[in-house]
Amino acid sequence: MIEGEEEIGSKHLDDFLRKHKEKLKADVVLVSDTSMIANDCPSVTIGLRGLSYLEVEVTAASRDLHSGTYGGAVANPIQVLAKMISSMKDENNRITIPGFYDDVVEYTKEQRGEMGKRPFDPEAYKKELGIDEVEGEAGYSTVERATIRPTLECNGFWGGYTGAGAKTVLPSKANAKISLRLVANQQSGKMTELFTNHFTSIAPKSVKVKVTALSGGEGVITPTDSAAYAAASKAMEKTFSKKPIPTMEGGSIPVVAAFEKILGLKSALLGFGLDSDALHSPNENFGLFNFYKGIETIPYFYHYFAEK
Amino acid sequence: MIEGEEEIGSKHLDDFLRKHKEKLKADVVLVSDTSMIANDCPSVTIGLRGLSYLEVEVTAASRDLHSGTYGGAVANPIQVLAKMISSMKDENNRITIPGFYDDVVEYTKEQRGEMGKRPFDPEAYKKELGIDEVEGEAGYSTVERATIRPTLECNGFWGGYTGAGAKTVLPSKANAKISLRLVANQQSGKMTELFTNHFTSIAPKSVKVKVTALSGGEGVITPTDSAAYAAASKAMEKTFSKKPIPTMEGGSIPVVAAFEKILGLKSALLGFGLDSDALHSPNENFGLFNFYKGIETIPYFYHYFAEK
Repeated sequence: MIEGEEEIGSKHLDDFLRKHKEKLKADVVLVSDTSMIANDCPSVTIGLRGLSYLEVEVTAASRDLHSGTYGGAVANPIQVLAKMISSMKDENNRITIPGFYDDVVEYTKEQRGEMGKRPFDPEAYKKELGIDEVEGEAGYSTVERATIRPTLECNGFWGGYTGAGAKTVLPSKANAKISLRLVANQQSGKMTELFTNHFTSIAPKSVKVKVTALSGGEGVITPTDSAAYAAASKAMEKTFSKKPIPTMEGGSIPVVAAFEKILGLKSALLGFGLDSDALHSPNENFGLFNFYKGIETIPYFYHYFAEK
Repeated sequence: MIEGEEEIGSKHLDDFLRKHKEKLKADVVLVSDTSMIANDCPSVTIGLRGLSYLEVEVTAASRDLHSGTYGGAVANPIQVLAKMISSMKDENNRITIPGFYDDVVEYTKEQRGEMGKRPFDPEAYKKELGIDEVEGEAGYSTVERATIRPTLECNGFWGGYTGAGAKTVLPSKANAKISLRLVANQQSGKMTELFTNHFTSIAPKSVKVKVTALSGGEGVITPTDSAAYAAASKAMEKTFSKKPIPTMEGGSIPVVAAFEKILGLKSALLGFGLDSDALHSPNENFGLFNFYKGIETIPYFYHYFAEK
């Protein structure tokens, strides 16, 4: 089975899985679409965040207006949308959608301490990204913010004149793409609904809003006491000469939850990329070291898994 | 003299005026780039707003990031810029830039009452624009908000992925075009500086900001007791069989202030367009009635002005 629609929401995958359930019988699924902590610090992924991806549109006047003639007197949809999006995180960068955190699993101090043992260098992180300061939910570390905590990110925003120079337009519409990254127990369908209801409720009377759900996927937690995890860990230890660390990852691989739900199959998340591979960015890359290490390691996974 | 650069800021005009000052000697300038209240309600424009037009850029990480891997942990420049822009108007839609209102002329109750006599139908206004509610500075009418009060409008905003479907990117940059409409005594250069200082000061440490001034122009107030105003008013009365009303307009015609400053010439603002002509919007138009009325009226202006 080859599928190439993940980045556009895998619209046809679930139907395909249901239709070919018999043919797709397996003992386990091996997924290599994950990353390691570093080339000298192997890791096996045990958690992925879920996703709700939406597009919103705010319309003020029914046509573009001259910003001199109407500016100050008619709602500006860019500013209305900017304000609505801004209001969705409070001063502690907590999401303000009512009920948003209800299903979030809170980890104990001990569990967080255990996860915090994962090597992480804040200065190297900032330097690699070219930033002076990180930013996120108060009370959580950078690694926690990107793995065990949900978030709301604006992935795109457009409205008005965006070319070179100046145009004095007060636009009719403004749009944004907004995604929620979800953590264990937050259901994508429910979160999409909570977002939609909240977004519609905070719109001022001076505009009309439209919300479209584009795609979604459920989060995943893989048990570390499974045969698949043991085989993945042992395979990595064999080729890296170092026991890999179990890690939570911030991204989403919706097919993992679909395989479990529809086919009843568990997945092992054994990937070889790095966060610094410029994923979803210009010059996305995958190192030759990682490519060859993957080729070397994966047969051992099959070997150790078959031994069980 | 023919100039076609107004919409890109008339960068070469002032130099041209200084160079050809002698050749451009005149008694008065007649400008027809203004509008009337309605075809059955002629008006002569006596005031225009000034303009400061800027572009801003907010940069977080030095490259686009995967919003799963980094979302929640690194500043999102779209959300930072949205918050910065939102903070620049308070809950009464007053601009929060320190010192912004210092040079704004406040009109007396009597003066505002006089201006309020201009015919204006709020229901027809909302219907024509397709809106349920107007929005603007508390304590002022729609006409006042668009003429005697300054404003800050976002004319364009772009960042991240803006095509069809979903892309889970946490972008490196977000940009906006922002214009300030200024009223009498607010100097464009000073307001550009106040904006720039304030915008830079409110940026969080997690981002870098850049502000570029694109263009500007000074507001204009034309005296109603001048020979030019009298000639314009009389010419309109002749062809419309109705005495025109003096009105303030929300737009800007920077050349009017430049003609006065560099050439020492006053302008008469005798235009024939309508606000509903879809200026700076698709299907911008100019009615045949207005076109022929202009042809009919303007010779009378020359006639009456020459009589003085």
